[in-house]
Amino acid sequence: MLRRVTAHPASSGSLSDPTTSRSERLVEPVAAKLQLVEEELRRNFRSEIKTIQDVGDHILAGGGKRLRPALLLLVSELLGYKGVRDVLYAAVIELIHTATLVHDDVIDEAAIRRGRTSINYRWGNHLTVLVGDYLYTHSMNLALSEGNLDILRLLSNATIRMIEGEILGLEQDGQSGLSIDDYFSIVGRKTADLFGACCRIPAYLTSASEADSVALFDYGYNLGVCFQLIDDLLDFTSSTEILGKPALSDLKEGKVTLPLILTLPHATAAERQMIGRVATDHSFEAVQPGDVLEVVQKYDALHQTREIARDYAARARAALAPFPDSPARQTLELALDFVLERDR
Amino acid sequence: MLRRVTAHPASSGSLSDPTTSRSERLVEPVAAKLQLVEEELRRNFRSEIKTIQDVGDHILAGGGKRLRPALLLLVSELLGYKGVRDVLYAAVIELIHTATLVHDDVIDEAAIRRGRTSINYRWGNHLTVLVGDYLYTHSMNLALSEGNLDILRLLSNATIRMIEGEILGLEQDGQSGLSIDDYFSIVGRKTADLFGACCRIPAYLTSASEADSVALFDYGYNLGVCFQLIDDLLDFTSSTEILGKPALSDLKEGKVTLPLILTLPHATAAERQMIGRVATDHSFEAVQPGDVLEVVQKYDALHQTREIARDYAARARAALAPFPDSPARQTLELALDFVLERDR
Repeated sequence: MLRRVTAHPASSGSLSDPTTSRSERLVEPVAAKLQLVEEELRRNFRSEIKTIQDVGDHILAGGGKRLRPALLLLVSELLGYKGVRDVLYAAVIELIHTATLVHDDVIDEAAIRRGRTSINYRWGNHLTVLVGDYLYTHSMNLALSEGNLDILRLLSNATIRMIEGEILGLEQDGQSGLSIDDYFSIVGRKTADLFGACCRIPAYLTSASEADSVALFDYGYNLGVCFQLIDDLLDFTSSTEILGKPALSDLKEGKVTLPLILTLPHATAAERQMIGRVATDHSFEAVQPGDVLEVVQKYDALHQTREIARDYAARARAALAPFPDSPARQTLELALDFVLERDR
Repeated sequence: MLRRVTAHPASSGSLSDPTTSRSERLVEPVAAKLQLVEEELRRNFRSEIKTIQDVGDHILAGGGKRLRPALLLLVSELLGYKGVRDVLYAAVIELIHTATLVHDDVIDEAAIRRGRTSINYRWGNHLTVLVGDYLYTHSMNLALSEGNLDILRLLSNATIRMIEGEILGLEQDGQSGLSIDDYFSIVGRKTADLFGACCRIPAYLTSASEADSVALFDYGYNLGVCFQLIDDLLDFTSSTEILGKPALSDLKEGKVTLPLILTLPHATAAERQMIGRVATDHSFEAVQPGDVLEVVQKYDALHQTREIARDYAARARAALAPFPDSPARQTLELALDFVLERDR
């Protein structure tokens, strides 16, 4: 699953690509269960209502890395969980994640996501909002079918914080004065908490100790921050061809991410003005993306961002220390390299 | 609460107005608890995130009939429930209802709701979607704090069906060929199920019999259908001044409701074409609203719609038959008259 199904098969890696073989080693221990997650997702998009079925087919055809489900299943493996309830929760997490992507399509007015036509473009704002609502509610309904209140509360809190993170991010639209603390507070809510919840869920399925439970949340949370930092970095380094969207699209949407936050205090007045203009205008009409990239590189901000991402990966690795060495633990460590070194 | 706080205090009724005195008799038995619901709502909109707090203040200042909370509390009273958990669930129901209104503002691109500036107009589509998401998730979180799985499942199913109803309604946009069955299937999902859930919740708080539980759902469901029929009727009969939005706004949004569904089979080709044109164009540029109203009246469709609404009110009344006569039961019967005869 981690070898995302894309509309550009030519751009997916080959076996000799070290990233690809890492991603294969990553899913191998949970491949059978990931297939069950895929079936569960398909079952949950089946509806007598045509639009839900159509949007579901579109989303499933678009694929995805299924990183969150894979992590949840790997943590299950780490804890020696022998049942299949983890498959259901992995599907729940992916449905929540998908709901945010669907609503993001209204939010960003993005015409392209993952190199494919976005849902919003094809079905309009109205249906996009409703289908996202359907996915959020349906994911909670699926979790309710198991009836574990601890997990329901964990998921509900993570979802609230994710939405709060999105709102905070939007409040900052076009603001180039975001502090590092503000940035990490948004990233924690928007991305890391759901990764944390995802890795903590198996602890509730196996009655792990509270300490182990917290350690697994920490692993997921820190991996999530790392994931977001690399995501922000890729917006500077990846070309449209690889990413399926134009580079520097965050800045164009008014989002000032860590590479720019690290750059701005050192930049000249003219450089700051140039960056601020794109954020305010939501446009590269007056400024070349290459010029912004040059400024960011001049102050070494991409390298620094990657170093900070490595720090978070190290924290995630440290959170695994209490668990005895096992193939599952080694794969969770490998997941950190995968997240750090991914190129899309 | 049923005397909605409006931006036009002059238009709210006086004590001599029979509708007003009915609405006062309706809330009187649960007035103290409705005040607690209002406080619970206020508490749930409190947030360190500025946008959530601001939108919350805007929504609370806009008031509302609080019909769903009042019904839930009256059914509680009917069942002799002595606790305060009904207050929390009444707030949950109102938050779910509010979330749909917020997302409706994205959906309909409505500039005016309840005679006030809509949230979308003031905060834009992006934040409107996210605040609606916040309200949905927050309402579920509030229900989770009680941890009653039966009620959580009831609420979750009602919310899914409500969203399905909205999607079905939107699939019919501009279609004047909607059958009566299709119409009632949409109304059941979109409106009536949440009223049904609302009236069934107190049964779970008092361990009422399954038969009583089903009867209370039926009361709420049939009242809900009646409520929607009168809503659709008011779109034809109420002026902008009273309703805070232009009459025939449903048709202008492409929604063909019961009065038109009853009219179309009898209408001439020219009349059908005129009605179809507004639904397709989403505009009254080529057609006068008064001309559409005249056609609907010519075939007696408003009177017929009211008669059907009365039938549903009678079914709701019949569902109360198993319960011994009491002030609470009399007030629930009064609620049916209130819903049938409301003018806004």
